[in-house]
Amino acid sequence: MNVSEFRKRGKEMVDYMANYLEGIEGRQVYPDVEPGYLRPLIPPTAPQEPDTYEDIISDIEKIIMPGAASPACTELETVMMDWLGKMLELPEAFLAGKSGEGGGVIQGSASEATLVALLAARTKVTRQLQADSPELTQAAIMEKLVAYSSDQAHSSVERAALIGGVKLKAIPSDGNFAMRASALQETLERDKAAGLIPFFVVATLGTTTCCSFDNLLEVGPICNKGNLWLHIDAAYAGSAFICPEFRHLLNGVEFADSFNFNPHKWLLVNFDCSAMWVKKRTDLTGAFKLDPLYLKHSHESSGLITDYRHWQLPLGRRFRSLKMWFVFRIYGVKGLQAHIRKHVRLAHEFESLVLQDPRFEICAEVILGLVCFRLKGSNKLNEALLQRIGSAKKIHLVPCHLRDKFVLRFAICSRTVELAHVQLAWEHIRELASDLLRAEKE
Amino acid sequence: MNVSEFRKRGKEMVDYMANYLEGIEGRQVYPDVEPGYLRPLIPPTAPQEPDTYEDIISDIEKIIMPGAASPACTELETVMMDWLGKMLELPEAFLAGKSGEGGGVIQGSASEATLVALLAARTKVTRQLQADSPELTQAAIMEKLVAYSSDQAHSSVERAALIGGVKLKAIPSDGNFAMRASALQETLERDKAAGLIPFFVVATLGTTTCCSFDNLLEVGPICNKGNLWLHIDAAYAGSAFICPEFRHLLNGVEFADSFNFNPHKWLLVNFDCSAMWVKKRTDLTGAFKLDPLYLKHSHESSGLITDYRHWQLPLGRRFRSLKMWFVFRIYGVKGLQAHIRKHVRLAHEFESLVLQDPRFEICAEVILGLVCFRLKGSNKLNEALLQRIGSAKKIHLVPCHLRDKFVLRFAICSRTVELAHVQLAWEHIRELASDLLRAEKE
Repeated sequence: MNVSEFRKRGKEMVDYMANYLEGIEGRQVYPDVEPGYLRPLIPPTAPQEPDTYEDIISDIEKIIMPGAASPACTELETVMMDWLGKMLELPEAFLAGKSGEGGGVIQGSASEATLVALLAARTKVTRQLQADSPELTQAAIMEKLVAYSSDQAHSSVERAALIGGVKLKAIPSDGNFAMRASALQETLERDKAAGLIPFFVVATLGTTTCCSFDNLLEVGPICNKGNLWLHIDAAYAGSAFICPEFRHLLNGVEFADSFNFNPHKWLLVNFDCSAMWVKKRTDLTGAFKLDPLYLKHSHESSGLITDYRHWQLPLGRRFRSLKMWFVFRIYGVKGLQAHIRKHVRLAHEFESLVLQDPRFEICAEVILGLVCFRLKGSNKLNEALLQRIGSAKKIHLVPCHLRDKFVLRFAICSRTVELAHVQLAWEHIRELASDLLRAEKE
Repeated sequence: MNVSEFRKRGKEMVDYMANYLEGIEGRQVYPDVEPGYLRPLIPPTAPQEPDTYEDIISDIEKIIMPGAASPACTELETVMMDWLGKMLELPEAFLAGKSGEGGGVIQGSASEATLVALLAARTKVTRQLQADSPELTQAAIMEKLVAYSSDQAHSSVERAALIGGVKLKAIPSDGNFAMRASALQETLERDKAAGLIPFFVVATLGTTTCCSFDNLLEVGPICNKGNLWLHIDAAYAGSAFICPEFRHLLNGVEFADSFNFNPHKWLLVNFDCSAMWVKKRTDLTGAFKLDPLYLKHSHESSGLITDYRHWQLPLGRRFRSLKMWFVFRIYGVKGLQAHIRKHVRLAHEFESLVLQDPRFEICAEVILGLVCFRLKGSNKLNEALLQRIGSAKKIHLVPCHLRDKFVLRFAICSRTVELAHVQLAWEHIRELASDLLRAEKE
């Protein structure tokens, strides 16, 4: 949608809202629909080509408004999470369908998804152990529980362990900053020998630091064999898996218990929208379910409906699946794929610009839209370069450490970014680098 | 703002966004402002009378845009939470000011606020105990930690304890459904004698079931004396405290460590916006702080800035304080007070209608906008009445149990509700009750 169409559609939307408010007394307070009403009204998969805006808006009155308030909110979310899961070719077990044991839920952030997964895993292992040994207290078990992630995992994993009151061990990643079988296996065996209880592994696809990928095909079977909950955090990279040429990066997801990525990061859905799937919804609801009378409803025991309040930390929910519905239909799968591909192409353009300048080096394989690079030389030199980039205020780069190296990260993010922007940014960096190197010599 | 003004202003806002998108390349990537830039540009308190819409919008370009992205988002939130705290006459210790130790933060829901408070309290007591007895493990401490709330507290308190891995005990409430000193004291002493470690009390102001109020002036000193973290959950009722005639309901807040209510419930701010204050911000940041390099910034160690990511569960944040700024200025404090007063008045109108019909009874004191009522008679009879109300689909009531009684709850919620709506609803309920009682006799 270009800016002039945004002006038109935005104003139509304002009128729609105003008309709704003016006519609200004519609407029914309570919906007539029965559980499951929405799915048959919506195609089973996202459109490949864009839908027209007129069709999308007219569906609001036909499909959403009859399920005013919560049924529409819940049911659209379930169906949109199935659409998105199919776009990623997630295994069937993660989809809700009409009667699946799995399904998707929108969380606010990848941090929350990781925490929810960890808490569900904690509850599950605690119950299993107590079923075998009823004399074990929760505290006695928690004292021995250990979660694992790569040393490249996001800080939110450490935070989830802190909140969940369990130990977290960082598995040393390999030369490509990936968690591999051998390192994980070694730590697990040492911990089990020491009487600890491994229960939870977070594998990262697309790390924050350098967009590296843990080796799922190695790590997955170890988790399944050891009865460890495997959670996959693909916060940034997940969006790319809608492109067949990047889907192989997700191979091994079939070993996971839960999978999460953020459409708000790279799939043109506004913040916040973090998509999480589980294979067994009862693992989540079992961890969080509490049922006071003021939250009961007539479909409670029917098993027909999804109660997302048992899938998440907060009780209240926003209608975030509407954003997904609009975006998927306005762009179509092909439009979204084009967006991803453009960013990856531009990242490779930047990479080749860097490689043409012998003063610089690339620090990690460029797989998606992130380029890790630095001036050949000391960390101090690169810190000084970043300082100059920051002071110039023309572009914004966020650094990281890769092992002992201070590294600059060039991330392609904007919906409207073009090659010219990338070239300008590189010229700017080169100039600042030249100034810096000249000053260093003096 | 009436509907015709909403049409006008909404369309202006669409143009503002479109113009922003069209002109985005002319804007600076990185702000020029220094930490603390925003507070001097904004009055220290909310306006009593409404501001003009033109003034509000022109302030966006003057005050927000120069701090594009995060500084404006953080600083406006701190100042808005101070505005709101002053509207409630919160003790100075809860305000951030320029150099306070306390301050406010927007959470997504009261559930999250309770959980964040519980986790902070858990960390604090664990560190204190380990400082005294370094041999104590976290698990050994957690096994003994006990949180407390009234038996009328919201289910989210139980959930927070479940997530935090600590015990929760329900204190029996008195005849007015309030937690009192004696019952709390008795349980605390019994638990301490049994070797348990009381560490956290949630007092509720305005319970979900019947809008009862725990006795803060009794409970507060007990918590302070026993070194227990006192968290106040005023999710619904908190908005009313901006009216001087209801402020006494908050007396005793000075004993609390944290206080929370939901402006999205009753202060005309759209969902979600849950306002939480703490007296010592380091209690929160101490519990959650983790600092990877990719989240570091140049003002890290200056102590000048507030890093809200250490105050909450997710890492990412939305710019929710903008909603507060607009609402506070569009209504003015007086406009918001008028909104609260109208709802309370209408609740009392409904109460008097109920009292005029001898078939019905009022089940709890009507203090704010909620009326708990029922047909005199069995629970079965009242369940049947609710069933008929639900089937008619004209109004929506949510029930509760008060002790052994099944009770109907009439809640005044809508911004646009008028006496005529309340009268219509009551006539409708009366008719359904008459039908029901007739059918019962046959």
